Amino acid sequence: MLVILRPNTNEKSDEYIQTWDFLSHLQNIQLKKHIVLGKQQTLTEIYLIGDTSRVDRQQIATLPAVERVIKISEGYRILGRHHDNKRAVGFEYNGVQFNQDNLHIFAGLCAVDNRKHAEQMMKALQENGQCCTRMGAYKPRTNPYSFQGHGKGCLPYIFELAGKYGIKVIAMEITHERQIGEISECLEQTGRPTGVILQVGTRNIQNFELLKEIGRQQEFPVLLKRGFGITLSESLNAAEYLASEGNANVIFCLRGMKTSFGNPHRNFVDFSHVPVVKRLTRMPVCVDPSHSVGVRDKAPDGLLEIFHATAQGIIAGANAVLVDFHPEPHTALVDGPQALYLDELPAFLEDIRITREAYEKRRRLTEQLIDHDAEA
Amino acid sequence: MLVILRPNTNEKSDEYIQTWDFLSHLQNIQLKKHIVLGKQQTLTEIYLIGDTSRVDRQQIATLPAVERVIKISEGYRILGRHHDNKRAVGFEYNGVQFNQDNLHIFAGLCAVDNRKHAEQMMKALQENGQCCTRMGAYKPRTNPYSFQGHGKGCLPYIFELAGKYGIKVIAMEITHERQIGEISECLEQTGRPTGVILQVGTRNIQNFELLKEIGRQQEFPVLLKRGFGITLSESLNAAEYLASEGNANVIFCLRGMKTSFGNPHRNFVDFSHVPVVKRLTRMPVCVDPSHSVGVRDKAPDGLLEIFHATAQGIIAGANAVLVDFHPEPHTALVDGPQALYLDELPAFLEDIRITREAYEKRRRLTEQLIDHDAEA
Amino acid sequence: MLVILRPNTNEKSDEYIQTWDFLSHLQNIQLKKHIVLGKQQTLTEIYLIGDTSRVDRQQIATLPAVERVIKISEGYRILGRHHDNKRAVGFEYNGVQFNQDNLHIFAGLCAVDNRKHAEQMMKALQENGQCCTRMGAYKPRTNPYSFQGHGKGCLPYIFELAGKYGIKVIAMEITHERQIGEISECLEQTGRPTGVILQVGTRNIQNFELLKEIGRQQEFPVLLKRGFGITLSESLNAAEYLASEGNANVIFCLRGMKTSFGNPHRNFVDFSHVPVVKRLTRMPVCVDPSHSVGVRDKAPDGLLEIFHATAQGIIAGANAVLVDFHPEPHTALVDGPQALYLDELPAFLEDIRITREAYEKRRRLTEQLIDHDAEA
Amino acid sequence: MLVILRPNTNEKSDEYIQTWDFLSHLQNIQLKKHIVLGKQQTLTEIYLIGDTSRVDRQQIATLPAVERVIKISEGYRILGRHHDNKRAVGFEYNGVQFNQDNLHIFAGLCAVDNRKHAEQMMKALQENGQCCTRMGAYKPRTNPYSFQGHGKGCLPYIFELAGKYGIKVIAMEITHERQIGEISECLEQTGRPTGVILQVGTRNIQNFELLKEIGRQQEFPVLLKRGFGITLSESLNAAEYLASEGNANVIFCLRGMKTSFGNPHRNFVDFSHVPVVKRLTRMPVCVDPSHSVGVRDKAPDGLLEIFHATAQGIIAGANAVLVDFHPEPHTALVDGPQALYLDELPAFLEDIRITREAYEKRRRLTEQLIDHDAEA
Repeated sequence: MLVILRPNTNEKSDEYIQTWDFLSHLQNIQLKKHIVLGKQQTLTEIYLIGDTSRVDRQQIATLPAVERVIKISEGYRILGRHHDNKRAVGFEYNGVQFNQDNLHIFAGLCAVDNRKHAEQMMKALQENGQCCTRMGAYKPRTNPYSFQGHGKGCLPYIFELAGKYGIKVIAMEITHERQIGEISECLEQTGRPTGVILQVGTRNIQNFELLKEIGRQQEFPVLLKRGFGITLSESLNAAEYLASEGNANVIFCLRGMKTSFGNPHRNFVDFSHVPVVKRLTRMPVCVDPSHSVGVRDKAPDGLLEIFHATAQGIIAGANAVLVDFHPEPHTALVDGPQALYLDELPAFLEDIRITREAYEKRRRLTEQLIDHDAEA
Repeated sequence: MLVILRPNTNEKSDEYIQTWDFLSHLQNIQLKKHIVLGKQQTLTEIYLIGDTSRVDRQQIATLPAVERVIKISEGYRILGRHHDNKRAVGFEYNGVQFNQDNLHIFAGLCAVDNRKHAEQMMKALQENGQCCTRMGAYKPRTNPYSFQGHGKGCLPYIFELAGKYGIKVIAMEITHERQIGEISECLEQTGRPTGVILQVGTRNIQNFELLKEIGRQQEFPVLLKRGFGITLSESLNAAEYLASEGNANVIFCLRGMKTSFGNPHRNFVDFSHVPVVKRLTRMPVCVDPSHSVGVRDKAPDGLLEIFHATAQGIIAGANAVLVDFHPEPHTALVDGPQALYLDELPAFLEDIRITREAYEKRRRLTEQLIDHDAEA
Repeated sequence: MLVILRPNTNEKSDEYIQTWDFLSHLQNIQLKKHIVLGKQQTLTEIYLIGDTSRVDRQQIATLPAVERVIKISEGYRILGRHHDNKRAVGFEYNGVQFNQDNLHIFAGLCAVDNRKHAEQMMKALQENGQCCTRMGAYKPRTNPYSFQGHGKGCLPYIFELAGKYGIKVIAMEITHERQIGEISECLEQTGRPTGVILQVGTRNIQNFELLKEIGRQQEFPVLLKRGFGITLSESLNAAEYLASEGNANVIFCLRGMKTSFGNPHRNFVDFSHVPVVKRLTRMPVCVDPSHSVGVRDKAPDGLLEIFHATAQGIIAGANAVLVDFHPEPHTALVDGPQALYLDELPAFLEDIRITREAYEKRRRLTEQLIDHDAEA
Repeated sequence: MLVILRPNTNEKSDEYIQTWDFLSHLQNIQLKKHIVLGKQQTLTEIYLIGDTSRVDRQQIATLPAVERVIKISEGYRILGRHHDNKRAVGFEYNGVQFNQDNLHIFAGLCAVDNRKHAEQMMKALQENGQCCTRMGAYKPRTNPYSFQGHGKGCLPYIFELAGKYGIKVIAMEITHERQIGEISECLEQTGRPTGVILQVGTRNIQNFELLKEIGRQQEFPVLLKRGFGITLSESLNAAEYLASEGNANVIFCLRGMKTSFGNPHRNFVDFSHVPVVKRLTRMPVCVDPSHSVGVRDKAPDGLLEIFHATAQGIIAGANAVLVDFHPEPHTALVDGPQALYLDELPAFLEDIRITREAYEKRRRLTEQLIDHDAEA
């Protein structure tokens, strides 16, 4: 059960003290407080943990500081939606809003190979009006003898170039907690020319120690990639690890599932889950067409299958796209075969624009719909 | 190797005789002739089967009746595209064209329960300008003690009502070859008021004896549902069973794959394969959002997830939609929980219209694209 | 609910008439009678179908012809065990007993290629004391252009050779109901020198029309192969289709599941389900190491992985082994790479003997075990 | 390519210098040295990395310090077998040998809950002649709000009790590199009464940073659990991460794969891969019947399915068994439903003894076998 207090309730106020006192005397119930710092207001949420079956919800709703009480229906206590559509969704970072209603494109290099390519990429993004990118410095690889990324060595020029070309947010995968500090220090040393969202890859989705460490810091938001071999529910529980430690600024990214049913694609594209994740949680939902599709095959209509997969995410309401580009895909050190060329960027963005516009039209359709499924 | 003769080549002409004579003397090569009856012309295709590695393609191209020679690159000899975009795609049936460029909606009853519901359904379709439907008379069920459809008993009123409401094509599942005759006879007896496409379900995808029997008749086209537990390539090989016996008028239907990765959907939506099937074969591609999604859950944007899945198929170029409706879903004998209500039909069609329009715009984008992947 | 009558209850006896009369007047309950013809006695089972929640089990137990009443707990009404260990398990066919306690080996040709190989195979079996074999005449193939078996043409010499070499039971796959008649006629014409168990392949596991037709005949028992892409429960329901139509003489065969997790084996070996199927149903359980493993790789201990998989089935109580042998595997038309050589047969049988002996010892261990899981 | 030097080759000897000199001048080839410290000898292995296709294997074999040259055929450079059966397999730790020929049982608590249960467990092990156990202090859990183990707090009494009851090796899962130090310090403080094998769980199989850290220490061997959602090859590559950093003392543990095909078991038992892992690598192979089966269901023959799964591992040559016991399973904090009772331990061990004896007999069969598959 979740008790939401009135906005800006002061912990020293009588209303708060009286409310907390009542709650803390409930039998077999533990309390966990979660503070949501918004731009205009501070929200205090109190989770009641334990056997809540005998707790009187009506009575709690009448406590002085309480705004409303929500029944927690799934395992994702903090990130879950719990059939309540009034709670805040999303967050702001470095001047950019991320929520379940808007859309951002993180086009960039899967793995940074050199400064020249990074600069070509960022320049192209600026020319096309983009303020986000992806840049991989730390790369987890299946084979221990494969290239594992340039690591912290490339951070200074990445950040500097981002600043130069007006990039505000870089999605950057990390594989170990120590890298949080490396990124933070380098940002500090370079004068904070840009911002970073910490990306956690599919292979670390159940690396709970890493998730906890990331959850304990508030500096960077997180882009968490779904596990390619576990259920959706288990991946959402992994996201909840971040929130349970204090960081609920999480974008959830669909990137395809590992099964031979996806052949000839590299993975089985799972973008049908875009509306599902939005229904079950309050996280913005990202799609990664590059790792899902994994090949540059082209349909007879002339569009690359990566374009089609992207459109499938967008038409169902995706809030972000993580996509691999490269100035020279055939020379890329990681995942070259799935990267788009820089000269494909304008068409890629135009394709998204067309599809997003259609999505907006589709949303307006709901005014015509009768609700056959309202809960009694 | 596939040798395509000039249109309307007469088998008694000198050109034909000379060509055939040459081909039939090739060593270790068997010939298989496939006739494509089009509206304006008859096309003769000759497949060279065996060790074609030593066959001189250039020489054959110069034979008198030959238009061109195509290298067969995948297993799907007849239905495959083989990187050739000039061959005929699709077919006409009962006045309706089915190909890889247009779009038809087969909304209807998963299982016919009674005449009243069938009539309500068809009336709604007519009012919404539709000429196709789905109507299930023969239902394969996992449990032997479940309702298995009304069988041939309901055919007379189904066909009569179809005629009354202007339905030209009914997609109807069959589970045994004897049902082809039952349908054919009943159509004859009722005066051919409508047409039927024989639907083969996912559980019969490798019931090769059934596929062969269906392939041997030319009266009805086929809608073949992908196998939910085999690879795409294996399902396309199953389609080829139909063509290899003589019937290449096949619509291929994606309907979701069976894996727990799809939860909370009933199956794992596989519509990312729409462009893949169009690339690998010349079949029109249908999507079945009802069996894929399987639930009436609604995204926070107010759209049912069945709508979203449908839009994902359409935005990537799907040519048909097979979807369950029912006047009273809660009373349906089969798959009620996934059926849409009749009053949702207008919005469903409008949603498809919006999305199809976006797809058409997307196609025009290709004029801007550079071809980085042309084969040398 | 299942009502078992006293053995040899005559349907004209007062006890029977009184019992049936009572049962047939139960409200909202349909009756389905199933007769089990044993060697010493005839057993009548009456299934109560419908809402049995209000039926008084105690009262029925006191009816004059009733021996006992069993609660039906899973979907497999007839074949299920329903936590009752007293009902008959298995069957006799052509003088051979098949049940959950004994063990038979069906070594033979996956696909009959010629008379010579069939004879070499059967001769080797006789020399090694075997009375069962497998011989494939009708082969379902993924690709329509692959060899599909010699069909009924090879039946006469197969049956004749079986008689010559003392083979009493041949497991033979069928893919269409018409083949039942072909086999029956050929057996008749050749003087019934042997017996046949109809094998249904994994691709036809949900070809319910075929299962129903096979279920309607009593001449041949059935060996049903598990579906490689559906759940165990769904496969057991498919077996129940046979029983629900009248034929409960079914051997259930595990043959590996289709998933890349099984690599480098052809399929994912599923023999851990041997005890599960024995617990859930009363069918004898067969294992097919050839199609599961699919390769002739050898462990460093010198034993082929096909031997190891077989031993894994046997040590857990398997009742039959279906295994591919071939006099010249490299010339086999189907599945050659997985076939064992004839000179490996003695070691294969000795390996099974060693392992079966260990299984028998393991069973005796249960006398030491405390039952911690008895139901209250 | 792998160059193995003669045992105890001194790096200052002329033979060594001459050999190294030659190898280091090969074009486009990098060298990686791996030292194997055995009891009687030190072995130097030199890996040639890069384009070895033009390297003359014969010539290298004649270099003064070289014993022999092995072609590296798969990705697992160090742990792989590479069709060579002469290299050392396994290792010794705390007086216990672990290799591909012997067998050890790690029965114990999945998660330590209190001192009393730990003591009851160890006492039972001693009474049954066991010197290994499993004890979980750090538990990764899917849900962030579940019990996560007592952590380092329980280490002192675990180690003390192990010493008291003669336990020489404890398999203990770790989830973060810091725990290596915690374990090492506590062992030191308690006077090294026992030894520890660091266990890496299935959810951390691609937590490459953790693997690298563990690989960099030589104090503890490793028990690595296969990933439940990736291919076998990917899991073996993860093991190679340990070896590539310096620690090749790895036991590889099969623990079931995550797919609904395994139902009603918790996971799909994968013990058919025991001989496969032994063929592909030089690691001893462990099986975990508790997490694979996950339930206490009992076959009609009276044996628990956990016993059957264990026997399936043993009969195919497994070298270790990791199995959950608990004095009071119904009170266990983690995975109680799959734990065996202490009074089942004697029968469990006897069952293994019977089956292992059968395995030994099976091995002797190979003397009768003809090798049909020898490489040319």
